[in-house]
Amino acid sequence: PNIGQPQNYHFLSREEQFTRALAVSSKMIQVKKKLGLLEMSPNIFYYHLNAEIPFLLHDVVFLGCIKSLASDEQLKEWLPLALNYKLIGCYSQTELGHGSNVQGLETTIHYIKETDEFEINSPTLTSTKWWVGGLGKLCTHTVVFGQLWLKDEHGQLTNYGPHAVLVPIRSLEDHTPLKGVTVGDIGPKLGFAGVDNGYLRLDHVRVPRSNMLQRFARVSPEGLYIKPPHSRLIYAGMVGVRVHIVEDSFTHLSRAITIATRYSVVRRQFKGPNDPKTESKVLDYSNQMNRIFPHIATCYAYFFAGKHLSSCHERMKADIKARKDISLLPELHANSAGLKTVVTYGTSEGIEACRLACGGHGYSKFSGLPTLQNNYVHVVTAEGENNILPQQTARYLLKMLKSASEGKPITGDSVRYIQDEFSSEFNSINQFMSANKLSTLFDLRVLLQLFKRRSFMQIRSMAMAIQDGLSSNSENVASVWSELNVEALRVNKAHCQYFVLNSFITSINSIPADGPIRNVLTRLCKLYALYNLERDLSEFLQESYLSINEIEPIRREIRTLFKEIRPDAVSLVDAFDIPDFTLGSALGRYDGRVYETLWEWAHNQPFNKNSVVNGYDQYLKPLIKSKL
Amino acid sequence: PNIGQPQNYHFLSREEQFTRALAVSSKMIQVKKKLGLLEMSPNIFYYHLNAEIPFLLHDVVFLGCIKSLASDEQLKEWLPLALNYKLIGCYSQTELGHGSNVQGLETTIHYIKETDEFEINSPTLTSTKWWVGGLGKLCTHTVVFGQLWLKDEHGQLTNYGPHAVLVPIRSLEDHTPLKGVTVGDIGPKLGFAGVDNGYLRLDHVRVPRSNMLQRFARVSPEGLYIKPPHSRLIYAGMVGVRVHIVEDSFTHLSRAITIATRYSVVRRQFKGPNDPKTESKVLDYSNQMNRIFPHIATCYAYFFAGKHLSSCHERMKADIKARKDISLLPELHANSAGLKTVVTYGTSEGIEACRLACGGHGYSKFSGLPTLQNNYVHVVTAEGENNILPQQTARYLLKMLKSASEGKPITGDSVRYIQDEFSSEFNSINQFMSANKLSTLFDLRVLLQLFKRRSFMQIRSMAMAIQDGLSSNSENVASVWSELNVEALRVNKAHCQYFVLNSFITSINSIPADGPIRNVLTRLCKLYALYNLERDLSEFLQESYLSINEIEPIRREIRTLFKEIRPDAVSLVDAFDIPDFTLGSALGRYDGRVYETLWEWAHNQPFNKNSVVNGYDQYLKPLIKSKL
Ligand SMILES: Cc1cc2nc3c(=O)[nH]c(=O)nc-3n(C[C@H](O)[C@H](O)[C@H](O)COP(=O)(O)OP(=O)(O)OC[C@H]3O[C@@H](n4cnc5c(N)ncnc54)[C@H](O)[C@@H]3O)c2cc1C
Ligand SMILES: Cc1cc2nc3c(=O)[nH]c(=O)nc-3n(C[C@H](O)[C@H](O)[C@H](O)COP(=O)(O)OP(=O)(O)OC[C@H]3O[C@@H](n4cnc5c(N)ncnc54)[C@H](O)[C@@H]3O)c2cc1C
Repeated sequence: PNIGQPQNYHFLSREEQFTRALAVSSKMIQVKKKLGLLEMSPNIFYYHLNAEIPFLLHDVVFLGCIKSLASDEQLKEWLPLALNYKLIGCYSQTELGHGSNVQGLETTIHYIKETDEFEINSPTLTSTKWWVGGLGKLCTHTVVFGQLWLKDEHGQLTNYGPHAVLVPIRSLEDHTPLKGVTVGDIGPKLGFAGVDNGYLRLDHVRVPRSNMLQRFARVSPEGLYIKPPHSRLIYAGMVGVRVHIVEDSFTHLSRAITIATRYSVVRRQFKGPNDPKTESKVLDYSNQMNRIFPHIATCYAYFFAGKHLSSCHERMKADIKARKDISLLPELHANSAGLKTVVTYGTSEGIEACRLACGGHGYSKFSGLPTLQNNYVHVVTAEGENNILPQQTARYLLKMLKSASEGKPITGDSVRYIQDEFSSEFNSINQFMSANKLSTLFDLRVLLQLFKRRSFMQIRSMAMAIQDGLSSNSENVASVWSELNVEALRVNKAHCQYFVLNSFITSINSIPADGPIRNVLTRLCKLYALYNLERDLSEFLQESYLSINEIEPIRREIRTLFKEIRPDAVSLVDAFDIPDFTLGSALGRYDGRVYETLWEWAHNQPFNKNSVVNGYDQYLKPLIKSKL
Repeated sequence: PNIGQPQNYHFLSREEQFTRALAVSSKMIQVKKKLGLLEMSPNIFYYHLNAEIPFLLHDVVFLGCIKSLASDEQLKEWLPLALNYKLIGCYSQTELGHGSNVQGLETTIHYIKETDEFEINSPTLTSTKWWVGGLGKLCTHTVVFGQLWLKDEHGQLTNYGPHAVLVPIRSLEDHTPLKGVTVGDIGPKLGFAGVDNGYLRLDHVRVPRSNMLQRFARVSPEGLYIKPPHSRLIYAGMVGVRVHIVEDSFTHLSRAITIATRYSVVRRQFKGPNDPKTESKVLDYSNQMNRIFPHIATCYAYFFAGKHLSSCHERMKADIKARKDISLLPELHANSAGLKTVVTYGTSEGIEACRLACGGHGYSKFSGLPTLQNNYVHVVTAEGENNILPQQTARYLLKMLKSASEGKPITGDSVRYIQDEFSSEFNSINQFMSANKLSTLFDLRVLLQLFKRRSFMQIRSMAMAIQDGLSSNSENVASVWSELNVEALRVNKAHCQYFVLNSFITSINSIPADGPIRNVLTRLCKLYALYNLERDLSEFLQESYLSINEIEPIRREIRTLFKEIRPDAVSLVDAFDIPDFTLGSALGRYDGRVYETLWEWAHNQPFNKNSVVNGYDQYLKPLIKSKL
């Protein structure tokens, strides 16, 4: 398969696409081996490949999993094999019947003392592992999550909940499935045609006891359960994945806005406002700016938020390493879950907006946008579904509010505002609001105060709604919680937008004052704030800092920002410096040769090799030549 | 190709998919011929086929075009050929460089008096026809739009603007492109793999003068331009397409909500609020209702709005037929353009929401949702781009406001409210608001007043913003208009939501009072209203009918509606009675056998025929068997 012409990728059948993905992977691995980069973080490769290849799951998910769940001895044995791709692994958690509710997994793991083995079994149809990337066709091994059952002294079976075991599933000789293993690909998907998300059924498959991932819990030869020292540490791994998703969103959104912005200065349509003779660049229409600029602002905002979150993560990892101190974990867990949701939604929305802003040509795969979008959006669902994670974040924030109300100190940097707001009430904001309300309103410090206050008030009003629900309806907590799901999402969004805005402003403040870069970023930051404020205006109005008289001025300010940002728009996306190959887009090319490229790619595609289509003789000729 | 197993469609290459589409089409046409249904509206076939086939463009777009633009004599000749598929046509308007701006087309049509022919030419790369469905591989003829150039008495060339000519492009003998014709497929797209959107370059191609579509304008043998009697009539055809899109949205959205609702009562996840022993149906979580129910309400709302709009269209067509009376055209033109935008956005959004509500399995093509979505969303861009059409509607509404302010009577049923509001100001609403504000607020009549008022106020505030812009900045109209693009969209949305709500309420009022159906629909209608009100709350607050004190009660009422609608949810989608074949979804099956079907379709797909994947020997074996 020809790796160099990604535009022809779309003409392959699903099977051919997968084989091509293997070819691309094999090339990538050759390069890594040659340059001695096998241990390097794989992200840079995936970034530039711009291809969906199944090794991603091995490089990122499987290796990430064993690094966090396997013991040092296990790693010593497995890591060299895995880094050299002699062992290719994947992560089998989800089942046909269970995704979000991991506690409900049905796969069983029983210890067989006689042979010192675990026996893993899929007892029902719905216990079939499903969705596992790399499983369908590629991997030789997989980490299987199942319910661990052990016998106590009296022979009584006890369930210790989900645990992970490394299971070989394909022969290292000829790649055929091992005995007791039924494995395959789960079928076509919205995106990721080059990845073999798979299914797996295990029929009483045995593995040695030492295959259980045992950094935390372990099972003794007698079949006794040995508890993990820090059960919460187990979650530290999941946090890492979400931090990565937040940081990585930037690499996707930046592509979309690069394509849409560049195309919008090549594309001209209608004799325009600026010059009655030539057609206007579509980016000169305020509506086009409205479709694209907020996402440029968001992209920069997410970049800084990702950096901020990642530095919190590094701090936590250092604490754990230095003194097994996990005190930063709960806050990071809440923030990473919440931001994962807000950022993946925002990124998906931005990519789609950019695609639509390219008009008809955005619907062509040659624009690069359909594939970018279809591949990206799975993140909204995977690694913690976006409607379930925010519930965890909201729970954490409500707990912080409770602490504040009980006078207990809140230590987390990102949530300390709950305490401040709780004690200061309306004062903090009034300090900033001068007589000349509007010029102050568009000051970043004031905007930050508004977002902070809005988040606090959302948390507080959710707490009050829970109180109401519990007292008035005498319902149980679970049903009150379920009824307030939507409020949890609202709370999460408010908190995370504050987090993002705060990160953005902090980063701007670290740039020398009054330089041009600082000015440009300040405008973007203002746009990020005002755009989101305008979208949820009622939540801000509700707290009476703003009145309805500010609605029109806010909209006017947004229009003014568009005009101010317009001259820098192209530079703002050129700054990402994404190579044309990586972008894979006829519309987003650096040199602007949009139409020439569309023509070339379309005209030369395999489908146009023959001038008469397959099926003409059988299906068309009889119609066209029929008698009237 | 196997027509009966659409789940295997996804494994074909693009070329194979197209050939399969031809096979499906040929089968369809056989059935139509056998049953004598060649003249029947094709929509019912496309509805049930649930396949993207290129004949759609012939049946709907090409036939629609010649029916509205060809003269009676031309139709007499062409229609029998077209209805029997001896002539297969398509609609070539868009060019590589011009879509929305039809006036900017570059293709030329010159009259050659000597031979009584037109010569059609593509003078530039960007004049290449592009995106035309059915053009790439299928059709024998196409209607080409180009600039008509005619010489006046003095031999001076004059441009009469875009006109349409029927051009044969492929041999009726062997389907090869005719001389001077360069034609092909434009490449892979987000959806519609079975359709051959194509490109076309014409190198001084000649056709007889009689091939110009001449219901309206025509050219005499001497090369003189004969003006159309009613130039506006030309737009009547476009109106028809948009009315159809509005009506048809229902058939797409109803599929998505059927799939998501049915799946959500099969899918169980987490021990839930209602029963601590079994897992809850996910539809019992209020958040899941929040993700799906507003779209059920919207689907019903669009159904009634579509019927309403279509009856206006029928009325106009009857007027034109009876007495060439086109007085209803401007209003219908504005409403159909505006509703096309609002309804296609709402439908796309609903389909995506339903897909996401299915969690991981919604990302599988076996859910039916990715294909539904990817195929549908092109409508947001095609047939009038969704950010350009609303500008026309806003212009019309502003004109109505001007009429009202000048005391001129407004006759259109759907816009008369502008006059009423203009004269009555705040009175109308106050009549409805009783002392007990909230119980009244949730009355449909009051909600309708709120939407009406909000629309009027948006129109008025846009008019004021234009005034401001013109006077204060001394800018020209075009640049003020461009700056206020976003406001035009806002105006359009407000007007169209009022139109939709009004249609919904009128339909409910025609149902016998207090019957169960009326109650169910009333709840849906309320949800439609409150859901949209809540989303644009600030626009409603701005007019001071509502105060921030009503925000919480509105949210509470929405939660109450969820609980009230929940028992009817499944019946509400079963009522659409969509056959399983038409739905093409493992998740949406009527019998609920979700997991069995997923397993069967996945396990039996062609990709799983061989247990060792193509490429193992070449790409994987060397890795797995390499030395450490
Ligand atoms: C492309 C892709 C790749 C994947 N790769 C892997 C992989 O490599 N390994 C692996 O193990 N898994 C993988 N997965 C699976 C993924 O982790 C799950 O799909 C994800 O966890 C969501 O779970 P679910 O599909 O069961 O959704 P469900 O939990 O069934 O959700 C269905 C709906 O119910 C709602 N819902 C459920 N519970 C609640 C509640 N308590 N309150 C309110 N609403 C609720 C959800 O919000 C959602 O709308 C992958 C999935 C995809 C799409
Ligand atoms: C699937 C599909 C099928 C199609 N089938 C056919 C067919 O059979 N025959 C045919 O002739 N055509 C067909 N088309 C083409 C279609 O009609 C055009 O794509 C559509 O008209 C949009 O035009 P455009 O692509 O030129 O967008 P543009 O007009 O180039 O729009 C690009 C961007 O600029 C913005 N913009 C442009 N002008 C303004 C303005 N004045 N103010 C503010 N913003 C502006 C738009 O909003 C958009 O965001 C098809 C397209 C698709 C996607």
